[in-house]
Amino acid sequence: LEKAMKGRQPTDLMLRCTVLDAIGNVKTISGQFRRADLCSEHRLNPRDLRKIDSRIPNLVPTILVRKEVILVNILHIRALVKADAVVLFDTYGSADSRLHSVFLYHLEHNLKSKSPGLPYEFRALESILLSVLSALEAEMVFIRNLVGGLLAELEDDIDHDRFKRLLHYSRRLASFQNRAKLVSLFCQDSARADGTPWLQRARDILRRYEDLAAMHLTDKKNGNPRRLSDHEDLEVLLESFSKQVEEIVNEAENIQSNVQSTQEIVELVLDSNRNELLALDLKISIWTMGIGMGTLVAGLFGMNLKSHIEENEFAFGVMSIASLVIAGMFAMQGLRRLAKIRKVGLGSKNRKMSNKFLLREYLHSKHEGW
Amino acid sequence: LEKAMKGRQPTDLMLRCTVLDAIGNVKTISGQFRRADLCSEHRLNPRDLRKIDSRIPNLVPTILVRKEVILVNILHIRALVKADAVVLFDTYGSADSRLHSVFLYHLEHNLKSKSPGLPYEFRALESILLSVLSALEAEMVFIRNLVGGLLAELEDDIDHDRFKRLLHYSRRLASFQNRAKLVSLFCQDSARADGTPWLQRARDILRRYEDLAAMHLTDKKNGNPRRLSDHEDLEVLLESFSKQVEEIVNEAENIQSNVQSTQEIVELVLDSNRNELLALDLKISIWTMGIGMGTLVAGLFGMNLKSHIEENEFAFGVMSIASLVIAGMFAMQGLRRLAKIRKVGLGSKNRKMSNKFLLREYLHSKHEGW
Amino acid sequence: LEKAMKGRQPTDLMLRCTVLDAIGNVKTISGQFRRADLCSEHRLNPRDLRKIDSRIPNLVPTILVRKEVILVNILHIRALVKADAVVLFDTYGSADSRLHSVFLYHLEHNLKSKSPGLPYEFRALESILLSVLSALEAEMVFIRNLVGGLLAELEDDIDHDRFKRLLHYSRRLASFQNRAKLVSLFCQDSARADGTPWLQRARDILRRYEDLAAMHLTDKKNGNPRRLSDHEDLEVLLESFSKQVEEIVNEAENIQSNVQSTQEIVELVLDSNRNELLALDLKISIWTMGIGMGTLVAGLFGMNLKSHIEENEFAFGVMSIASLVIAGMFAMQGLRRLAKIRKVGLGSKNRKMSNKFLLREYLHSKHEGW
Amino acid sequence: LEKAMKGRQPTDLMLRCTVLDAIGNVKTISGQFRRADLCSEHRLNPRDLRKIDSRIPNLVPTILVRKEVILVNILHIRALVKADAVVLFDTYGSADSRLHSVFLYHLEHNLKSKSPGLPYEFRALESILLSVLSALEAEMVFIRNLVGGLLAELEDDIDHDRFKRLLHYSRRLASFQNRAKLVSLFCQDSARADGTPWLQRARDILRRYEDLAAMHLTDKKNGNPRRLSDHEDLEVLLESFSKQVEEIVNEAENIQSNVQSTQEIVELVLDSNRNELLALDLKISIWTMGIGMGTLVAGLFGMNLKSHIEENEFAFGVMSIASLVIAGMFAMQGLRRLAKIRKVGLGSKNRKMSNKFLLREYLHSKHEGW
Amino acid sequence: LEKAMKGRQPTDLMLRCTVLDAIGNVKTISGQFRRADLCSEHRLNPRDLRKIDSRIPNLVPTILVRKEVILVNILHIRALVKADAVVLFDTYGSADSRLHSVFLYHLEHNLKSKSPGLPYEFRALESILLSVLSALEAEMVFIRNLVGGLLAELEDDIDHDRFKRLLHYSRRLASFQNRAKLVSLFCQDSARADGTPWLQRARDILRRYEDLAAMHLTDKKNGNPRRLSDHEDLEVLLESFSKQVEEIVNEAENIQSNVQSTQEIVELVLDSNRNELLALDLKISIWTMGIGMGTLVAGLFGMNLKSHIEENEFAFGVMSIASLVIAGMFAMQGLRRLAKIRKVGLGSKNRKMSNKFLLREYLHSKHEGW
Repeated sequence: LEKAMKGRQPTDLMLRCTVLDAIGNVKTISGQFRRADLCSEHRLNPRDLRKIDSRIPNLVPTILVRKEVILVNILHIRALVKADAVVLFDTYGSADSRLHSVFLYHLEHNLKSKSPGLPYEFRALESILLSVLSALEAEMVFIRNLVGGLLAELEDDIDHDRFKRLLHYSRRLASFQNRAKLVSLFCQDSARADGTPWLQRARDILRRYEDLAAMHLTDKKNGNPRRLSDHEDLEVLLESFSKQVEEIVNEAENIQSNVQSTQEIVELVLDSNRNELLALDLKISIWTMGIGMGTLVAGLFGMNLKSHIEENEFAFGVMSIASLVIAGMFAMQGLRRLAKIRKVGLGSKNRKMSNKFLLREYLHSKHEGW
Repeated sequence: LEKAMKGRQPTDLMLRCTVLDAIGNVKTISGQFRRADLCSEHRLNPRDLRKIDSRIPNLVPTILVRKEVILVNILHIRALVKADAVVLFDTYGSADSRLHSVFLYHLEHNLKSKSPGLPYEFRALESILLSVLSALEAEMVFIRNLVGGLLAELEDDIDHDRFKRLLHYSRRLASFQNRAKLVSLFCQDSARADGTPWLQRARDILRRYEDLAAMHLTDKKNGNPRRLSDHEDLEVLLESFSKQVEEIVNEAENIQSNVQSTQEIVELVLDSNRNELLALDLKISIWTMGIGMGTLVAGLFGMNLKSHIEENEFAFGVMSIASLVIAGMFAMQGLRRLAKIRKVGLGSKNRKMSNKFLLREYLHSKHEGW
Repeated sequence: LEKAMKGRQPTDLMLRCTVLDAIGNVKTISGQFRRADLCSEHRLNPRDLRKIDSRIPNLVPTILVRKEVILVNILHIRALVKADAVVLFDTYGSADSRLHSVFLYHLEHNLKSKSPGLPYEFRALESILLSVLSALEAEMVFIRNLVGGLLAELEDDIDHDRFKRLLHYSRRLASFQNRAKLVSLFCQDSARADGTPWLQRARDILRRYEDLAAMHLTDKKNGNPRRLSDHEDLEVLLESFSKQVEEIVNEAENIQSNVQSTQEIVELVLDSNRNELLALDLKISIWTMGIGMGTLVAGLFGMNLKSHIEENEFAFGVMSIASLVIAGMFAMQGLRRLAKIRKVGLGSKNRKMSNKFLLREYLHSKHEGW
Repeated sequence: LEKAMKGRQPTDLMLRCTVLDAIGNVKTISGQFRRADLCSEHRLNPRDLRKIDSRIPNLVPTILVRKEVILVNILHIRALVKADAVVLFDTYGSADSRLHSVFLYHLEHNLKSKSPGLPYEFRALESILLSVLSALEAEMVFIRNLVGGLLAELEDDIDHDRFKRLLHYSRRLASFQNRAKLVSLFCQDSARADGTPWLQRARDILRRYEDLAAMHLTDKKNGNPRRLSDHEDLEVLLESFSKQVEEIVNEAENIQSNVQSTQEIVELVLDSNRNELLALDLKISIWTMGIGMGTLVAGLFGMNLKSHIEENEFAFGVMSIASLVIAGMFAMQGLRRLAKIRKVGLGSKNRKMSNKFLLREYLHSKHEGW
Repeated sequence: LEKAMKGRQPTDLMLRCTVLDAIGNVKTISGQFRRADLCSEHRLNPRDLRKIDSRIPNLVPTILVRKEVILVNILHIRALVKADAVVLFDTYGSADSRLHSVFLYHLEHNLKSKSPGLPYEFRALESILLSVLSALEAEMVFIRNLVGGLLAELEDDIDHDRFKRLLHYSRRLASFQNRAKLVSLFCQDSARADGTPWLQRARDILRRYEDLAAMHLTDKKNGNPRRLSDHEDLEVLLESFSKQVEEIVNEAENIQSNVQSTQEIVELVLDSNRNELLALDLKISIWTMGIGMGTLVAGLFGMNLKSHIEENEFAFGVMSIASLVIAGMFAMQGLRRLAKIRKVGLGSKNRKMSNKFLLREYLHSKHEGW
């Protein structure tokens, strides 16, 4: 607990960052920076920096707009975007270096493009959102294939090991769904008309930029005055991103409901199979009982007592057949019972009939004393 | 992953489109157009066009209003509506050509009508919405029949194969529900007073049109000034469409809840049936035990040892009857036990009585040492 | 599909209607009117009329306010209310003529009343809402009795047929809940401060009426100027109606949750009963095994081989008792095992104890090699 | 149905009321008043009075503010509050007279207090809300104890009767939760900034009161002008009441989720116990089979046929041991099978190993032809 | 009930408090104060004080802003914050003194800091929120470890005791989730743009402070005028706190869904295991039946009757082999049956084939009369 409290006090640890400069070139790869230096260099509050400190796993995505920087923390990307530089923080334990290098390549390319479109910081943001989107999509496709394969296997045979795999996939799916939903929620909040605090602040800054367009760095460099519709561009970007994340969340829910209904039906199939097993077991038991009855009769004549038919020539044949017939009769009686129980449906027409049967059966069984 | 990223960069692929001109005639059927040409011809951003690119399956419906065109992407329809032309994109893999031709016929008819009602682009939109509606309705009716038939079969008999079919229908229903809900959500958003971005933009454009009515293409052609209530007509159209989609979603939920409650009851019926099977099994086991007891007695007298009653004339009859009586007594004892357990209800009145029984039973069984 | 499309195009079918005139008298009972005539007479758009066309079953309630008429479509009532006439459409397939005649009687009575309260059209609306309310209430009471009776029967005994009835009632309840919820949702939307489009339009009309009070038909007939608080009266009417529908929905949810928890407990009771059946089965099996052991011993001495105790006088007694004792010992061993498994609880205190037992048991069973 | 309709028309039934006057003294206890008299005396619409008519059970709480009276209908309390009198309606069938008398005592005391705090009608309202709160709290504590006791009993042993009690408590809890939630919802609606219609009307009246403070009855009696912050006091009262009801609802949900998770685990425990029972049953069956095999061998030598070893001195011993060994071997084979099935876990490490086992097992069983 | 009513009337009980003065020193540790003194000293309404009275357990967090004090009641912390003092109330029964002392240490430290940041009361609030956060986090980590360990154990083996522990952890998790959600809800309400009543009041006070900055205590002491952005600081504080609580709630939901899906799969695994046990049981039963058949044959020849083959030299061998063959045949027949039932999957391809089998099987069984 004490640790938790202290963990919140500023520490002077090193952070590994990759820095891109104003024309999109990578200046430093995984260089080490002191946290305090970063704060002072980018005029950040240490509390804000802690938000994108990569050692604490945090799932809720955040974009914080501060005086000169935009702090981004979505899924695997933790970045600090300025008007003339992008600082990417390395996330510990993320072995997916391929994803990272594709992102870096795209970001460089996007920042270098001289098109008169979005300003520098929004182009960086666009690359980040695209990387998030493709990461989500890739994971979704992966999970869909895993689950789809497993469900196809269940078509063939239902067994233990498949349930265990189902559990592992199910957990993975739930965790993915959770992450995707958080990103989706974040996007929807942002894309909505009134927006979230961060968007409002971004818009305020944009408006201020427009007033001070002359002295603005990006625009000075590009030599063209900032267009008035910039913050609309930002919203269109977010709206489109939001739609696609929604699509992914939707797909994940589909998989989830698919797994759910399969589980329910598998349970019914197992239940129904169990009833069939029981019914067969019953048949076997019934035959065993019948055979036991025959054995009892044979055993009685095997007693070392006088049955007074010892000398009868045909007694053996008669008693053998008799004991087999007794065995068969007992078994038949049991099988008739079973057949009545086995006939199971949900119908009510059928029900009325079976009611009559049950009544007759009831009277019958009372009479028989079974 | 790289592919996913690249897949988002503009490519110059061909698209198959059907084009209708300003008086509703089909100009081209499934003609091939280059993506870039389409963009430049209709002054579109490639990013927007990608939204209705038919190769990516996307379920979330979208209507985008751009400067001169309305981009529509709902279920099987992907279209580009202008004030004097409609471009329909062919959706790959949609074999339902019948649905498509009915839609095309209706669209032509609707665009050709000279009534002074809605302007050209809204008549196109109306046809699109109607086609979406009838597609949803047709699928809903189809699934309802499938599921209804299966549930009716379950009335007769509950078995394996029906569960498997239930699973397939269940998945299909879930997927349909998902699609219908997305359309419904989209409609409700649009039909609401404050509307979604696309409707607001549509209204803005309408208002601008009203200002510039003189120079407007559609109205020039028709020769009558645009009425002021046009955007109200659009809203009435959407409201009515929204109501009907809601009706379909509602129906789908009904089917869904029907399936759900059937599954639950089937489980209870199977459980209850299993208990009956077990109870019969028990009866059989009890009789088998009784018979076994009789056989033991018979076996004892079958030992090659001196029982000192070998010479007794009646010993055979006495012991035979005795062993049968022992068999019967053991069985009766077991059956009495069973009868007590079989009586199962939820009542508490009954409970108090059975409590007494249980107490007596408890003391009894202690005494007996069973 | 083609049909569905065509079904939406105007057709000149006949509709059966009952018409009430301005002083509340029934002018026509179930008269046949051509759809086109109705449209032209009441200045309606055919599309609007289709909404209350009685052949399409539609559950979502609607009230549409058009220039001169109010179109109402709630549950079994489809009506067209004007300032001086009410047209009721007959709903096909609704055999509940009693409900209809009570409604008609009440409507006539309400329209004839000369109280200076609500204007003509709102008195008609009031009667309609009251009829809807009593229809919902009647059905709710009916279902409550059905379900209540069934649950009471389940107190006595749990069996197949009751589950089947439960399924039928459950479906019926779900369908009722759905209808009631749709009505309730509709009311809440209407009763809310900002209202729905139809209420806003109704209010607009009312306000216009107030301006044009002099030339208004109803008020001219009654000879008194329209009071200013009319639209407040309408809202109070709706609020009160809304409260009562909410009460019904609430009751239906109560029944639903009651059914749900009963199902869950029934499942547990069946499960627990099954375990008891199994335990008894086990006892029987154990005794059968013991008896079988005894029979084996007896059988060994029944072999036609020399056991060297054939001549012993007491051998028969000794071996008989020995075989019975062996039977008893085997059975006792099994029963002790069973007793340990049967003792099942959720407690952890008990658990620690049973842990010790299990440990001892484990060592024991290892030693025994069972 | 007709009744339902008529039940809504004014009737001249008597109502039993308790009346408190302006200085808090009980004027009449359970006096009989004619409904019409009450309406005219308090200038009420009969429709409003029907809302608090005690014979119709209604769960949704309502407060209606009319010209001179406030009508309150929350749980067991149905009252009519004026600026100088409180009329309490007796609720039929509410046997909890203790609750009622405590409430009456508190109300009297509160109305008599001369503190310059809330005005007369709000002091009455405060007492009513407090009584509602303590009624909810008392019932919550009662149910919590019932359920807690039952769950503690389930720790010891899981059986039939406890499930039945659980069902009864569960129903009771659901009904309580429903009532508490409705009250909570009502409070939250009221405590919210924009409020519900009744609160808005109450505020309007308060504001009007403030304007007309001089001629106001309560204030004249007390001789001090009404403070301006009165309606804030009302809101603070409601906010505090709302918080406490929320607390109760929260507690009820806790109990509910506790019951839910207990049910789920009980099902798993029963399932797992059933598997143990089955496993023991299997062991018994296996031993029975083995013993049966031994008996068969013994039986073969018991046949009255020549085995040519009749005269062998050691044949008896050899065959006895042989049959026992055969019995044991068959049993061992079965037990080995069982042990493999019994080992059940969710692990995948274990899974791979068991896969190998299963493969070997599979080949083995194929070879053996079991 | 009477008690409950009385419990709400002011009582003069003692409260144990720890007081910190304006420069952050602890003045009194667990001193006893009379409730009435506290009220008069801090100008509080007794009703407000009751909210933080530590003997009533209340889960819903509250912050009340009164004229001079802020009353805080979140989880384990109940405090009264003024501009120059903090009063902490001891919570009875909270044995977690470690948590308390860390909090006290942090609070002292934070209040003593001379940084020109937040004013005194907000620094106190910050410490309180941090303590709440670390308490939630610590408990979340603890529960995650408990549940994680248990789920890992379930990977190895599924048994009774683990379910019981699962129940206990499940309850604990639910209770934690409930608490965390309430705190999260409270934070979200507060962090939202429009805020809750308490935040609005806090802002009003801040604004008033700004007007009266000259005469404000805190600022006078610090000697610097209050900055204008104070209430923005407060909101940033709350937003950051809210994010972190959300993160914890999210984590708890993850654990919850993990437990849920594990339970579901465990049920399926147990079901599937039961079917395997049953299948093995069936095999055993089938063999037992076969053996019983053999015994019957042997028994028949053991009868003391003339079979006319007594003297045949090979009869013994023939009959022994015959009885074993009969045993084998009966068993094989049963095993073939079983194999058909055991093959269970969800596939439909497989289904069609098995349909044919079932048909043949059906005809076969009819013919055989089994």
